[in-house]
Amino acid sequence: MLDLWLKEAQIDDVALTYKIEKTLIRKQTKYQDLAIVETKRFGRMLLLDGIVQTTIMDEFIYHEMITHIPLFAHKNPKRVLVVGGGDGGAVREILKHSNIDKVVLCEIDEDVIKYSKEFLPEISCALDNPKCEIFIGDGLNYVIEHKNEFDVIVVDSTDPFSVGENLFGGSFYKAIFECLKEDGIFIAQTETPFLLPDLVKKIYKDVEIAFPIAKIFLAGIPTYPTGFWSFTVGSKKYDPSKFSKSEVPFPTKYYNKELHEACFVLPQYIKDLINK
Amino acid sequence: MLDLWLKEAQIDDVALTYKIEKTLIRKQTKYQDLAIVETKRFGRMLLLDGIVQTTIMDEFIYHEMITHIPLFAHKNPKRVLVVGGGDGGAVREILKHSNIDKVVLCEIDEDVIKYSKEFLPEISCALDNPKCEIFIGDGLNYVIEHKNEFDVIVVDSTDPFSVGENLFGGSFYKAIFECLKEDGIFIAQTETPFLLPDLVKKIYKDVEIAFPIAKIFLAGIPTYPTGFWSFTVGSKKYDPSKFSKSEVPFPTKYYNKELHEACFVLPQYIKDLINK
Repeated sequence: MLDLWLKEAQIDDVALTYKIEKTLIRKQTKYQDLAIVETKRFGRMLLLDGIVQTTIMDEFIYHEMITHIPLFAHKNPKRVLVVGGGDGGAVREILKHSNIDKVVLCEIDEDVIKYSKEFLPEISCALDNPKCEIFIGDGLNYVIEHKNEFDVIVVDSTDPFSVGENLFGGSFYKAIFECLKEDGIFIAQTETPFLLPDLVKKIYKDVEIAFPIAKIFLAGIPTYPTGFWSFTVGSKKYDPSKFSKSEVPFPTKYYNKELHEACFVLPQYIKDLINK
Repeated sequence: MLDLWLKEAQIDDVALTYKIEKTLIRKQTKYQDLAIVETKRFGRMLLLDGIVQTTIMDEFIYHEMITHIPLFAHKNPKRVLVVGGGDGGAVREILKHSNIDKVVLCEIDEDVIKYSKEFLPEISCALDNPKCEIFIGDGLNYVIEHKNEFDVIVVDSTDPFSVGENLFGGSFYKAIFECLKEDGIFIAQTETPFLLPDLVKKIYKDVEIAFPIAKIFLAGIPTYPTGFWSFTVGSKKYDPSKFSKSEVPFPTKYYNKELHEACFVLPQYIKDLINK
């Protein structure tokens, strides 16, 4: 029997390996090496440049936390920008909020959208929603060209070691600040604090310079290295760690109202890291 | 160059792999296959039957959380029993509490103690403390033979698939209840809720039958499968999720006062799992 395994070596000297059934698609796109494989344990899995982006089994954690935290911290969000996120998972969660009028998805690589629609319909299902506008292009340029337009900006990027590189750093966060309305909130996925403490600290400090309020929260994501992932939030007005509604009006699988506040309570080593 | 990797296949179809420098000790003890290896990323690592037990780099998370949660929830703990935990990490943390008069370590496999003392001195350093009494023997028998003796019992066992098997289940928790004083608290490491939901639920339900108060909390442990680990607490009187002191009187690296309460706030899928 063919015993196929996928090895993800995102971090030197430690790797997550997955038994796979088959490779559904593998393509060198204009920007990256895209693959979707069928794993035994996590279902279908999207990889970009060999790094796990999302899987059918655990995608709910990442997509709920990167969207519901800023959207339930903001008092009345109407317009949302997603930078990256071509798989559509963030858009799907955002459109569960009935107050949202429009989501713009700015994805540089149209093949991510194309193959997510074909092979990951559970994740990409909302990309055809009339409230979703898809723009194929560079996230940094889009943000620079649009001022004072969005209530929430979700940076659902790859890691800073690949095509997502210019979606990290002080000048990007400054542009994000300008692109947001006066009470806007921005969120980004920001890597593993255990294995990449210097990176997590640098991102936090950069966001702290660009925004009056900067906070980090954590979520347990099985298919990301160490399983304990950070998100950094920059906010102009609202405290991102406060749930601003009375109830969550739709079912969720990871996020809930109590967790909204609790996930911002940091383990001591992470608190020490960003307060140094 | 010799490219040595260790593969931990605790869970079917997914594995954590570590680049290693060398194997420091490998021995078939009376009970299990013991190994201590030097990894590149996590430092020295103890394995029992091929399963990662602890590493120099991330052991602080597990050992702080399995001890400080019950010890700071209890109003005045004096006597503590550790079942398993032959590496000594739990004893080291327990003895940071100046009110503790005595810790009994009941470990079935004396080789775990012997080789932890030899190769993991940072972890085992408190095993020679005069307040620590070491008893080599079966944990279940010890618990049955001692009634109403301990304020806190820490079950720092291997998984229920190996020598630790009889340290899980309703009859063990009932014996634990009897072994505790009238306001005692018990804690156990209880696996990954994401990959082993049925097991986590069963343990919780068994503890809920044996104790008036049962709660689960989570911690991010990089070297355990999925990185998001559950601990189950059974308590006779005190709410385990409440920090009962004013301050933490010694430095910690993961645990802190605010996290004491926040770590009990569960993601929705785990809340749903145990409330079903």
